[in-house]
Amino acid sequence: TRQTEDVKGDRELHVKTTLRELIIYIVFLVILCIVTFGMTSTTMYYYTKVMSDLFLETTHSGGGTFKTITSVEDYWKFAKGPLIKGLYWETWYNNVTVPEDQLGYIYYENKLLGVPRLRTLQVHSNSCVVHDDFKDVIRECFESYSESLENKDSFGEKDNHTAWHYQSQDELDGSSHWGQITTYSGAGYVQDLTNNKTESEDIIEYLFEKRWIRRGTRVLFIDFTVYNANINLFCVLIRYVTVYDYFIMACEFILCLFIFYYMVEEAIEIKKHKCSYFKSVWNILDILVIIIMIMCVSFNVYRTLKVDELLQDLLNKPDQYANFEFLSYGQEQFDNAIAIAVFLAWIKIFKYISFNKTMTQLSSTLGKCAKDLAGFAVMFFIIFLAFTQLGYLLFGTQVKDFSNFQNSFFTLFRIILGDFDFDQLEAAHRILGPIFFMLFVFFVFFVLINMFLAIINDTYSEVKGDMANQKNEFEMTDYFKRGYEK
Amino acid sequence: TRQTEDVKGDRELHVKTTLRELIIYIVFLVILCIVTFGMTSTTMYYYTKVMSDLFLETTHSGGGTFKTITSVEDYWKFAKGPLIKGLYWETWYNNVTVPEDQLGYIYYENKLLGVPRLRTLQVHSNSCVVHDDFKDVIRECFESYSESLENKDSFGEKDNHTAWHYQSQDELDGSSHWGQITTYSGAGYVQDLTNNKTESEDIIEYLFEKRWIRRGTRVLFIDFTVYNANINLFCVLIRYVTVYDYFIMACEFILCLFIFYYMVEEAIEIKKHKCSYFKSVWNILDILVIIIMIMCVSFNVYRTLKVDELLQDLLNKPDQYANFEFLSYGQEQFDNAIAIAVFLAWIKIFKYISFNKTMTQLSSTLGKCAKDLAGFAVMFFIIFLAFTQLGYLLFGTQVKDFSNFQNSFFTLFRIILGDFDFDQLEAAHRILGPIFFMLFVFFVFFVLINMFLAIINDTYSEVKGDMANQKNEFEMTDYFKRGYEK
Amino acid sequence: TRQTEDVKGDRELHVKTTLRELIIYIVFLVILCIVTFGMTSTTMYYYTKVMSDLFLETTHSGGGTFKTITSVEDYWKFAKGPLIKGLYWETWYNNVTVPEDQLGYIYYENKLLGVPRLRTLQVHSNSCVVHDDFKDVIRECFESYSESLENKDSFGEKDNHTAWHYQSQDELDGSSHWGQITTYSGAGYVQDLTNNKTESEDIIEYLFEKRWIRRGTRVLFIDFTVYNANINLFCVLIRYVTVYDYFIMACEFILCLFIFYYMVEEAIEIKKHKCSYFKSVWNILDILVIIIMIMCVSFNVYRTLKVDELLQDLLNKPDQYANFEFLSYGQEQFDNAIAIAVFLAWIKIFKYISFNKTMTQLSSTLGKCAKDLAGFAVMFFIIFLAFTQLGYLLFGTQVKDFSNFQNSFFTLFRIILGDFDFDQLEAAHRILGPIFFMLFVFFVFFVLINMFLAIINDTYSEVKGDMANQKNEFEMTDYFKRGYEK
Amino acid sequence: TRQTEDVKGDRELHVKTTLRELIIYIVFLVILCIVTFGMTSTTMYYYTKVMSDLFLETTHSGGGTFKTITSVEDYWKFAKGPLIKGLYWETWYNNVTVPEDQLGYIYYENKLLGVPRLRTLQVHSNSCVVHDDFKDVIRECFESYSESLENKDSFGEKDNHTAWHYQSQDELDGSSHWGQITTYSGAGYVQDLTNNKTESEDIIEYLFEKRWIRRGTRVLFIDFTVYNANINLFCVLIRYVTVYDYFIMACEFILCLFIFYYMVEEAIEIKKHKCSYFKSVWNILDILVIIIMIMCVSFNVYRTLKVDELLQDLLNKPDQYANFEFLSYGQEQFDNAIAIAVFLAWIKIFKYISFNKTMTQLSSTLGKCAKDLAGFAVMFFIIFLAFTQLGYLLFGTQVKDFSNFQNSFFTLFRIILGDFDFDQLEAAHRILGPIFFMLFVFFVFFVLINMFLAIINDTYSEVKGDMANQKNEFEMTDYFKRGYEK
Ligand SMILES: [Ca+2]
Repeated sequence: TRQTEDVKGDRELHVKTTLRELIIYIVFLVILCIVTFGMTSTTMYYYTKVMSDLFLETTHSGGGTFKTITSVEDYWKFAKGPLIKGLYWETWYNNVTVPEDQLGYIYYENKLLGVPRLRTLQVHSNSCVVHDDFKDVIRECFESYSESLENKDSFGEKDNHTAWHYQSQDELDGSSHWGQITTYSGAGYVQDLTNNKTESEDIIEYLFEKRWIRRGTRVLFIDFTVYNANINLFCVLIRYVTVYDYFIMACEFILCLFIFYYMVEEAIEIKKHKCSYFKSVWNILDILVIIIMIMCVSFNVYRTLKVDELLQDLLNKPDQYANFEFLSYGQEQFDNAIAIAVFLAWIKIFKYISFNKTMTQLSSTLGKCAKDLAGFAVMFFIIFLAFTQLGYLLFGTQVKDFSNFQNSFFTLFRIILGDFDFDQLEAAHRILGPIFFMLFVFFVFFVLINMFLAIINDTYSEVKGDMANQKNEFEMTDYFKRGYEK
Repeated sequence: TRQTEDVKGDRELHVKTTLRELIIYIVFLVILCIVTFGMTSTTMYYYTKVMSDLFLETTHSGGGTFKTITSVEDYWKFAKGPLIKGLYWETWYNNVTVPEDQLGYIYYENKLLGVPRLRTLQVHSNSCVVHDDFKDVIRECFESYSESLENKDSFGEKDNHTAWHYQSQDELDGSSHWGQITTYSGAGYVQDLTNNKTESEDIIEYLFEKRWIRRGTRVLFIDFTVYNANINLFCVLIRYVTVYDYFIMACEFILCLFIFYYMVEEAIEIKKHKCSYFKSVWNILDILVIIIMIMCVSFNVYRTLKVDELLQDLLNKPDQYANFEFLSYGQEQFDNAIAIAVFLAWIKIFKYISFNKTMTQLSSTLGKCAKDLAGFAVMFFIIFLAFTQLGYLLFGTQVKDFSNFQNSFFTLFRIILGDFDFDQLEAAHRILGPIFFMLFVFFVFFVLINMFLAIINDTYSEVKGDMANQKNEFEMTDYFKRGYEK
Repeated sequence: TRQTEDVKGDRELHVKTTLRELIIYIVFLVILCIVTFGMTSTTMYYYTKVMSDLFLETTHSGGGTFKTITSVEDYWKFAKGPLIKGLYWETWYNNVTVPEDQLGYIYYENKLLGVPRLRTLQVHSNSCVVHDDFKDVIRECFESYSESLENKDSFGEKDNHTAWHYQSQDELDGSSHWGQITTYSGAGYVQDLTNNKTESEDIIEYLFEKRWIRRGTRVLFIDFTVYNANINLFCVLIRYVTVYDYFIMACEFILCLFIFYYMVEEAIEIKKHKCSYFKSVWNILDILVIIIMIMCVSFNVYRTLKVDELLQDLLNKPDQYANFEFLSYGQEQFDNAIAIAVFLAWIKIFKYISFNKTMTQLSSTLGKCAKDLAGFAVMFFIIFLAFTQLGYLLFGTQVKDFSNFQNSFFTLFRIILGDFDFDQLEAAHRILGPIFFMLFVFFVFFVLINMFLAIINDTYSEVKGDMANQKNEFEMTDYFKRGYEK
Repeated sequence: TRQTEDVKGDRELHVKTTLRELIIYIVFLVILCIVTFGMTSTTMYYYTKVMSDLFLETTHSGGGTFKTITSVEDYWKFAKGPLIKGLYWETWYNNVTVPEDQLGYIYYENKLLGVPRLRTLQVHSNSCVVHDDFKDVIRECFESYSESLENKDSFGEKDNHTAWHYQSQDELDGSSHWGQITTYSGAGYVQDLTNNKTESEDIIEYLFEKRWIRRGTRVLFIDFTVYNANINLFCVLIRYVTVYDYFIMACEFILCLFIFYYMVEEAIEIKKHKCSYFKSVWNILDILVIIIMIMCVSFNVYRTLKVDELLQDLLNKPDQYANFEFLSYGQEQFDNAIAIAVFLAWIKIFKYISFNKTMTQLSSTLGKCAKDLAGFAVMFFIIFLAFTQLGYLLFGTQVKDFSNFQNSFFTLFRIILGDFDFDQLEAAHRILGPIFFMLFVFFVFFVLINMFLAIINDTYSEVKGDMANQKNEFEMTDYFKRGYEK
């Protein structure tokens, strides 16, 4: 879409061309939005909410919920109570038994695919080094989890429960998971539950009695897959059904055409301008959007083809653990990519509106102060990072908000916006806490943020002064006026 | 009130006229405020609070309240406990039975009119489409509620309880209700309770045992009407009683005269200026206020006439459900309309004070930067909407604050004001959450908001400069000074 | 302290005089602070906290606390549980009985003076008017409390408990109390408890059984007086004991001298300047401080004389209710007056520092923009009040923060500072709530607040420009420099 | 590092030298950061959290936790429940007894060193003066704690439990502790528990029965020491083990060299410039960093030598209380000192980047407005302190946030940032509360903060104007450009 540049001599023609391009672009944007919103539903939040509350917010016999688990004891209370109760719905609310063919649904609606699986990871007992003086009293020491320290020996009872025997990531067809503290591998000690409530309860009781969770245990996963026909996790498969869906399908088709059109156009332009093409921010934006789009379309096609066969396999073996990890991971990336593409497409509108005078004034202000702002940003971030590090080192062991470098960074950022917990800082250190806070607020909030404002303010005055001296160019509004006068 | 424009030659006369108009206008405003405040009472909040707390905050046997209901089980616990307990007050607090003639009062004060009514809406069992692969295992599927998918078949027990039989909106004389997720029709399966506690308990137990709430049930309404003699829902009926009320009545009469006066005046002006009349913002404001006023007066008259007869009907049949839906809906609209009219009347004061010099300076600053601000607002909203959409698509399924487009919009708006929940965003996506937040704050909070300030700041300097060069006009303060000197 | 004005010719002498005055003033201020801080103690907060928590935060048998009482039932639960338990400490924590001579102490430390008293106020049963249509069903109607509607008839049991008989404000020697909803008189139905736990429990059980609290009951007071020797409510009486206290006494004496000195000085000045004296803000400040000081000293003397005799009376009759209402009320006013006097004394420092150049620049900026700011403030408050009224009328019945005009005002003020509850507004009205909020934030937060900034910013530039052109006057810093050079 | 100043004639050489210095400095900074981060671990927060939650957040039989203790009764509930349960882990979660050699570990991981110790401090019974009128009824009076009022007599039972006998600070080898209300000495009545759960329970039951905590008891300490092999409290001892640790060790060595290098350099400069050396902020920064560094290195060496021997002592006597107070105190100071040194080192970067033009513009703005800002700060703080004192005197007895001078100061500071609790203020005094708040916000938030902005804004415009007139100096960017062109 560099055509606009080519027309130079005639200002009016330029406006005309831009206008045409703008209209085409808006059509494209509207269709893109329709397609994107067609894929989401505002009720999805409530479905996810109800499911997560069922497991995370239901109280167990100890009075806490999943979120308040801090000891192994609490965990088992959770597993015996809310977990089992949430997974197996074998009676109606008035205690009448649910008929056989309606079993296996969470909330009587969400089909549990395959069986749930419990998995733990351990570290071996000599994973950390004990100081010589303590060697006599402390004989075992378990380090924080890291893949290299994983315990791979069998342990506990000598029966044929899989729970006592290590299986590698390949055997389990698993993948590593990025947890709150560190990244955990997909291997471990695995125990599948069954489709039956009483049996599953027995398994959990057995694991509890035999102390499956030991000192070296570092993490425990509970995996299960649920299918809800209403929100259609694999929505593409059955999307083309109602009339509204046919409309969406049509839009998708048009969208593909558009992508093809813009792709070709950009290709031509690259050929023409070569390297200088990449100097414009707008061009890079164009290419980015196109690449994301193509990737999404490809994933869509791939998913439609593959999911079907995967599903058949899984439905044939209802007593096994159903591994949808890869699929849901892909879907998530796809959703995010689409979201970002739409965002970028929106931003591109600015390319077209920048030749109205008031707009120009604003965008050229932004452009002009960019260099100053960048220089300022460097200063700002050096001070900000210095404070981040100071906060982390001073309060890291006691205040959650400073417990690692990123948290410390975000916490300070939130202070600027007025969201902070002063009491925590004061509790962490009665003297350094308030001093740190005061210094930070004074330098960053009062001085630096105001500097920001001074830069923009000054540049705006300057640009406005320049504009006033410039003669009026032929503008889009003039174009409309002329059309109106004719 | 365009008279001010006609007087041009003599500046002093102009000031004099304006002053007279201003005084008249202030009298009008004061009377308007007296009437409006006469209709409200600061104790109303406590009455509403006590009532809603009784039903919404009382804990049921499961430990939760109405607001924490997430399952059908919880709902029945609520119905059997707080609902029944809140509706029927048959003993004093020391367990002595309340005498017959004082029954039927909530908190011994609020008369329960008619009987409470339970109503549910269902969707039919094939309201959504199941993917082919799942057709074998999933035989029923219930879509989210929409009026077209409503189940109209009788179900459950074959006895003559109305609860099992569908009644249309017309049969029930109901109206649709705009709920949190979607709009629900006024039809459905209806069960009235009685005026007696034990009977009502039996009905609820019966519905519970027979599983009145099924998988397809999408919404359940509990409707009842309460009359409190203290706050007088239909306050107009008995307002003219005490001396203070006679004063209010007098004010109302004067207000009507005023409305008539302004109506005539505006009519004359419209005739005189024709189309150009509508170019002034003040004139449009005038007309708006007058129209709202006339509507309110009409509604007032209509209500006084109709309510009486409605009430007679309802009091004659104490065992039926009392439908006050229409009345309370109208009253609400009336209250809101009045509130807005008073607000607009206040704003109109600016028309009169704008010729004091300091004031002029400020209002002409606002006027002058309006165009720039508008241009800026367009830019601002494109970026803001792009972020809104991005937030909705990225976090919509997990974060309540982004669960639909409006929420997403409001949430981002609140971030600007410093009211946000960063942890939620970080929990939703550990990488995109913080990046999204940082980008938003940087571009919208730091850059755009400061731009806002730059525009106003620059325009103010300019206007002040212009003013300083201008010679002083004859001002209202001069008028007062002269009067003082005489 | 207008002496500074008289010296004009010699700049240096002027500085010298001011400096001397400043030093005298600082001595005065330091002594004032010492006296004030000598009267307070940082442990007082913990004493008050522990006491109020004992009664307000202890949970009763119903699971709630005093603060969550919403029904009469809850109230009696509170009275039977935390109230009795908090007033009578008859065993140690290990259930051994406390010896006779240590009875009557709350937390074994705070002497309960006299006996606690329960008092209720009722309105009579025809205090409000019922609509004609309802006259048949609703026979009694109780209005919100106002003194004229007070019920003065005896009621309930026909025994000689004072609880059933009305006593006027004079009989009870009480005073009216300004509650959350309205102001209540000091009259009512009164029942004293005793110094013995079991007896008091019986009285409360009796009142409960006989339904002392009826429909017309509008308010219930529990009054008791506690004396803690540590914080010495009547601290003046025993203040002159330790060495530190002698120091404080000395300071107080000096302070009285100062007050006398300034009093004389101001008197002289008033004589000299007559009316023009009152044109200076500093002079008015001076007089204000002196008047408050004199009042405080008088109260101090009066209290020292009277309290003693009052106390003797009360200690002689341990079985009666001890009425300290007047004393604690006076003490509170005294504390507040002192606090304000100290604040004003601090502010007066500005009079002396205003002749350093940088300072002058800042204070003349404030002075110069005062007129513009005042004009702006008028605009600001008209809009602000219009919004306040709109908020009150639209959301008053549902949102606590808007339940009356003041609340509405404060709530909007807090929105500007970023402390608000958007969800509440949205819950109150799904459409008008967000629109109201957006409009308010846009006009008041974005436009008007920035206007504020623009005014100050512009004036500062102007003043700084003027200053730069002015030649340097002889300043205080020069004075110090010269002294240093000698 | 004042070398840069010496080179004046040749601008290019100057840039070159600075660049070389900057690179050396960055190397230094990187190594410093590596060493610092090598000493901390992001999992440390979780270890501390789990431990403190165990004791502070576990609920006792009364339903509260350690944090909600308000009475002696609650305290004993805590001691009998969570304290004992948290200290002695004698069974696994499935109630199987833990083998003998794994006893004495909290969470089976954290070795309890020595035995826990309970310690109380009392004040004697005549520590405060009772008013004459009350002398008959109030015979004992206990003042707030201060060291001089300490009770040193034995009390209670006449057996040989140490609990009843006072031991001085020297006997106990203790140190004073700065608590929430005041500072407490290290002396007191001491009772050690044992390593055995049942025995410890008996001791606590004994103290409870015999009423160890009396009216005069003012504070109770529970001290115990825990060693976790994972986080290695005395990390230096075993740090040099893995390959990564060797890397850290190397860095530490290099760091020492750097410190030595900078030390020598500064010494030379001091010799050369004498007094004028101390006029530059950067030089003072240099010296500060070096001094802190040397102190830290010394402490490190000292710790390595001493800890070893201390530990041996303690491990030999497992039945005694292990006093690590001094060590943990030293470690804490060491950590804080390091953190501050790193922060200062970061800030010093500004010395080098200040000759890029955009940067200069910003830093010279800061420099130029420093004087104005300082003058302003004086004004600001007088007003701020006046408000602080007013807040403290008015609301100190009722609102926690104003309960002493510092709290009042911090609270007002937080109001500026938008973090406040208006309701509390309104509850404390219905009229003065809101007025105080409004006045503060108006003067400090609206006027003074905006003044701040005006100063920075104005100075920036000025500096930018000056810069534009100046001719471009040879800059670092030019240097790079030239290098690139060659
Ligand atoms: Ca804020």
